[in-house]
Amino acid sequence: MSVTAAQGFRATGVVAGLKSTGDRDVALVVNDGPELAAAGVFTSNRVVAAPVVWSRQVLADGRAQAVVLNSGGANACTGPDGFADTHRTAEHVADALEASAGDVVVCSTGLIGLPLPMDRLLAGVDAAASGLVADGGHDAALAIMTTDTTPKTAVARRSGAGGTWTVGGMAKGAGMLAPGLATMLCVVTTDALADAETLDRALREATRTTFDRVDSDGCMSTNDSVVLLSSGASGQSVSEAELVEALTEVCAGLARQLVADAEGASHEIAVTVRNATTEDAGVAVARAVTRSNLFKTAIFGNDPNWGRILSAVGTVPESVAPFDPLTLDVAVNGVQVCRAGGVGEPREGVDLAGSRDVVVEIDLHAGDATVTVWTNDLTHDYVHENSAYSS
Amino acid sequence: MSVTAAQGFRATGVVAGLKSTGDRDVALVVNDGPELAAAGVFTSNRVVAAPVVWSRQVLADGRAQAVVLNSGGANACTGPDGFADTHRTAEHVADALEASAGDVVVCSTGLIGLPLPMDRLLAGVDAAASGLVADGGHDAALAIMTTDTTPKTAVARRSGAGGTWTVGGMAKGAGMLAPGLATMLCVVTTDALADAETLDRALREATRTTFDRVDSDGCMSTNDSVVLLSSGASGQSVSEAELVEALTEVCAGLARQLVADAEGASHEIAVTVRNATTEDAGVAVARAVTRSNLFKTAIFGNDPNWGRILSAVGTVPESVAPFDPLTLDVAVNGVQVCRAGGVGEPREGVDLAGSRDVVVEIDLHAGDATVTVWTNDLTHDYVHENSAYSS
Repeated sequence: MSVTAAQGFRATGVVAGLKSTGDRDVALVVNDGPELAAAGVFTSNRVVAAPVVWSRQVLADGRAQAVVLNSGGANACTGPDGFADTHRTAEHVADALEASAGDVVVCSTGLIGLPLPMDRLLAGVDAAASGLVADGGHDAALAIMTTDTTPKTAVARRSGAGGTWTVGGMAKGAGMLAPGLATMLCVVTTDALADAETLDRALREATRTTFDRVDSDGCMSTNDSVVLLSSGASGQSVSEAELVEALTEVCAGLARQLVADAEGASHEIAVTVRNATTEDAGVAVARAVTRSNLFKTAIFGNDPNWGRILSAVGTVPESVAPFDPLTLDVAVNGVQVCRAGGVGEPREGVDLAGSRDVVVEIDLHAGDATVTVWTNDLTHDYVHENSAYSS
Repeated sequence: MSVTAAQGFRATGVVAGLKSTGDRDVALVVNDGPELAAAGVFTSNRVVAAPVVWSRQVLADGRAQAVVLNSGGANACTGPDGFADTHRTAEHVADALEASAGDVVVCSTGLIGLPLPMDRLLAGVDAAASGLVADGGHDAALAIMTTDTTPKTAVARRSGAGGTWTVGGMAKGAGMLAPGLATMLCVVTTDALADAETLDRALREATRTTFDRVDSDGCMSTNDSVVLLSSGASGQSVSEAELVEALTEVCAGLARQLVADAEGASHEIAVTVRNATTEDAGVAVARAVTRSNLFKTAIFGNDPNWGRILSAVGTVPESVAPFDPLTLDVAVNGVQVCRAGGVGEPREGVDLAGSRDVVVEIDLHAGDATVTVWTNDLTHDYVHENSAYSS
């Protein structure tokens, strides 16, 4: 059900001919209200695509009526003409919906540095606008896929005294996943009643512990966008804590699907850092490991090579994460292969071939903060997918 | 000629049985004086091998008589027993040479987390001590190889008014190359007269612009060591500037050989950043590109994918490297594929298939500092070498 699980939304995904495959490539999500509150978080890359520049402005007033998304082209590094194309797209959606272009969020994904074929895109927008349906969330999720092999959707439902409310979302992302954000594109909708400021805070809190803790290949996109729309159609007022909890469930579900479908991956890896001095320190240590190509190739080879884990942990400056290297413990899939910075249980006891899931636990013995960052292994298929053709 | 190109040095490399291949695996380099001045720079990893802990202490007084090196085992993450093994190795060398263990530098390379087979290693030390020869530099360079396919050596000779002096060196390193330092092990010798403080400053200056500007796979070793020994046997006093110049030539030659022989590489890539505000800013931008797996797989695929270059450049915080993303220019092998942050010349004009050498030039238009960082592409062979067996 994805973005149409919550009341007050319609969506669709159509074939506009942007993808050479002939698959769906333009998605439209519309909020029918009664409320039009919205929030967004975007890539922290300084090189940003035209639609990111546009959509930040759209969401600055905490209000949006529609999100139009296309695959088949990122519209990044396309100069003033690229921005004009984004603007035209928003105007076209606004005309079709009898809305204001200033309430239309635009998201694009695909190859960087190529102009969008605007005639096909605008025709696709017309088709999408006339095909909006209350159960169109699945088609919309299909239309934003690039090298994804499956659509990613998640739904959380909550019952209160006055009735039920829902959060639903869709995401796409296969390569170029790295914190800030980990996803290329994501739209989350809810029918709960919440003002824009609450939505903004709740979305930042939910993405901080989900999308920002996923690191597929250490590369950060120019187009990453997470957009949250609230229709208020359930009539249910919710607390910020309730909203954070449900949003986090949906975002975590989508983030895990992103890692599971990352380009060429054969293992999903959870790196948990225990007893860090702070959450930031733990994240820094976990990310050092999740970004180590030597660690990630070892996991692909089903080798619990804890020496590569320790050598990655040791690259984090003491000013960022205080710990004593001689007290480090490391367990892989429950076997403590490293104890006090030295040899622990025999690595032969670790079975990595039997499952896609790998759990690495690193104990810093320095504080009481625990964090987990998710990644995947580095495989021949990753090299193939990213060298055999442009993406 | 390697470490025996300069006068006053003997060396050798022997088979001790540490490598399963039966190749040479223990090297010994001895300074016969008259001077025993020395300096060293080591990995900035906080997880350091026992020989690094030992050798930092040895070099604290600016004096060393010998360097013993082994491949076939890193002696890292081996706890107090590992440190005792390093200490025993130094004592054994000292006994054989009638020297002090406090003047014996120890270097190890190989798998992390395994104890060294000390009986074989010490027998190898005996064989090496009795086999030292004035032209043993090549054998020593062979004995420190791991997954290297060729030994790395370099020599610089200088003639002054009073005669000639020489700097020679050897290095090994194939994977786990990243700044701070880029090499696993390197020994450089000179017969120039220079005190320990001058050697130390000159070595730091030479490594800063050579080994520290090489980044193969973004992974930093626990064992990286560069040791400089001076015999003074030429009788030639040199200025610090002259010494830096010759040391830089040797270190640059070795660093380029490391990149050319990096695991699985099919292209050597020079990333030059022009018009950065500072040298540090330029290095940060260049490293962001040399660490991008998406960029490195594109080069493997002979694809001048400048969008992946820009998306990597954009990850550098403005506080580290001020620049305007809308003024960025990028050239690949001389073709300006990106102009002012947007589309430039057609990428079809770039030929990457015809040569191993790739030159990427990024103009930040922000200042007047220019730096180059060297790396290589990310290939199937890299994944194979680092997943098919433990290293």
